[in-house]
Amino acid sequence: MRVAVLGVGLIGGSIGLAAREAGHEVSGWDIEEDTLAAAAERGAIDRAADSVADAVSDAEVCFVCAPVGALAELVAAALAAAPSGAAVTDVGSTKRAVVEGVDDERFIGGHPIAGSEASGISHARPDLFREATWYLTPTARSSGVLYDRLHSVLVSFGAHPTAIEAEEHDRMVAVTSHLPHVLANVLVLTAAERAELDRAGPRIGPSLRDATRVAGANPAIWPDIFASNRETLAGEIAEVIRALEEVGSLLERRGSADAIESWHRRAADVRRRLLDPSMAGGPVHELRVWVPNRPGIVAQVALALGRGGVNIADMALAPAPDFQSGSITLWIAGDEPAERAAALIGELGFSVERAA
Amino acid sequence: MRVAVLGVGLIGGSIGLAAREAGHEVSGWDIEEDTLAAAAERGAIDRAADSVADAVSDAEVCFVCAPVGALAELVAAALAAAPSGAAVTDVGSTKRAVVEGVDDERFIGGHPIAGSEASGISHARPDLFREATWYLTPTARSSGVLYDRLHSVLVSFGAHPTAIEAEEHDRMVAVTSHLPHVLANVLVLTAAERAELDRAGPRIGPSLRDATRVAGANPAIWPDIFASNRETLAGEIAEVIRALEEVGSLLERRGSADAIESWHRRAADVRRRLLDPSMAGGPVHELRVWVPNRPGIVAQVALALGRGGVNIADMALAPAPDFQSGSITLWIAGDEPAERAAALIGELGFSVERAA
Repeated sequence: MRVAVLGVGLIGGSIGLAAREAGHEVSGWDIEEDTLAAAAERGAIDRAADSVADAVSDAEVCFVCAPVGALAELVAAALAAAPSGAAVTDVGSTKRAVVEGVDDERFIGGHPIAGSEASGISHARPDLFREATWYLTPTARSSGVLYDRLHSVLVSFGAHPTAIEAEEHDRMVAVTSHLPHVLANVLVLTAAERAELDRAGPRIGPSLRDATRVAGANPAIWPDIFASNRETLAGEIAEVIRALEEVGSLLERRGSADAIESWHRRAADVRRRLLDPSMAGGPVHELRVWVPNRPGIVAQVALALGRGGVNIADMALAPAPDFQSGSITLWIAGDEPAERAAALIGELGFSVERAA
Repeated sequence: MRVAVLGVGLIGGSIGLAAREAGHEVSGWDIEEDTLAAAAERGAIDRAADSVADAVSDAEVCFVCAPVGALAELVAAALAAAPSGAAVTDVGSTKRAVVEGVDDERFIGGHPIAGSEASGISHARPDLFREATWYLTPTARSSGVLYDRLHSVLVSFGAHPTAIEAEEHDRMVAVTSHLPHVLANVLVLTAAERAELDRAGPRIGPSLRDATRVAGANPAIWPDIFASNRETLAGEIAEVIRALEEVGSLLERRGSADAIESWHRRAADVRRRLLDPSMAGGPVHELRVWVPNRPGIVAQVALALGRGGVNIADMALAPAPDFQSGSITLWIAGDEPAERAAALIGELGFSVERAA
């Protein structure tokens, strides 16, 4: 597959390394000449292009890896220059703004849940996406064939592509990523207001250290991420405020020991459940889904399974000879997830066949 | 030194191991016979006592290592049975309640900032307190001689004893420890309210994972810790709510990108400063302080330095022949902290001499 990478820092560089390791051919471009040269030197790209148009000219899949603030413009440039049959995706941490701004069947928003506190091409690694969830946000407009192609490329990186609606994605990362960052900032600033703490660096216990690990994370990108998800994040902050108010009044009420304990035990249960790895793995099942051949079907199926927490290990599309219908073959790991997938697809009104 | 340990789980067992390694002689008692037997087998105690009175009968320093809810009673039992010249301390995570409840010059509240997610004698380690801050909360009533003795024993464990007022201690742990636990609980429960997250264990990113590491921590002790610091903790929660409200309105206000960025950069600065290890270490200075020989002086000096963020590496008391005055010799690591210590003691009105 011919892959183009626009922006070859930590994420773009790692995409290049992973793609080359998987046998794809990679062209790269970066706004910084030095970064592009470093990417070539590290073997993250086969070819350093001298413009966006040059990089994407014959691409089959194009990754736009710019900071959130610069995404819209670079996605538009990529779509303008890319061939009509190319899939174009991005890696931005929020999806609604960029997805709503594009009206092109070739574009499918993306967001790999990977990265590190480090940044830059020098920290790029071919295994950065191994076993990582890689969100994709297809819309009813997105081409099913291109979704399938993008899915395969991501699987070749060792990632788990998972379809999700852009709005839902932003609400979820607000909780799983942006909110922890906000709380870390707030906690560290609250701690600093205690003058004695300010001088007492070495006394900070492990809880505060862990809880504030991401405080003030990469100031070159995080303020933009917060801003790009502002309404949703503000809504989640309001949720947290409500929850804290409840805990505060619980604490202030005498005789609330049992209620405090049950609140705490609920948190213990939930954490165990959230981090339970038992839903991953298991024997791989093959499901064949018969669908009408019209735009948006692949997105619809992928989104239904994503919503249902089912991970699609792999997929393949096959149009029927009449071009009016076709099949989607899905490979799902685990007995229970495969069962659930079949039920979810049944609910969409499509017929499902379980291969032996 | 003869050391008694009441309660020989993770903390008490580690005290026993550290004390024996430092050459002290350790008697131990536990409410659970099996735990006591396990402590003897692990070599955490020299002698298994069959009652509190038996354990402390000839102790010079006695450590009360009970859960917060059982502390008051066990401290009272230890004081009732311990010799008149014994120092009695505890290891509870909050200090005001226990310190206010005791009126005895032999008692000095304590709290080692050490521990682990594991609990029980089987996880006890002789090096658990190495380089750890160990808060002591002497009052004006506390005996200076016994404070000095306790300080030396803690130094022999490799810990850094640091004096702090009980109320200040509780306010500080509310921020550095209890608040991170509350936020972890709230975050994990907020995340669980998102149904799709509930099923999506493997998708939880590293930020949420880290931020909720302590969610629902050891339900056998944490609800009691929260409850024992309820007013202070509720106050700090209110602070966090105020800060979150500010961030929320910042996010909701268009054109606030610069303000968001400056808030985020402030968090980055503060975290760097809080975790700056540069204040530890350096050449050790010896300060001799001339003081009147009356109760509470050692506590006053130790508290002033603790408040000032100065770590006392070691100390020694020497009464003058007239018994009306005496000296406290302090060893302080680092040029700047020694300078600061001398200034802080000067502010108390005592004369300080710098040894060569």
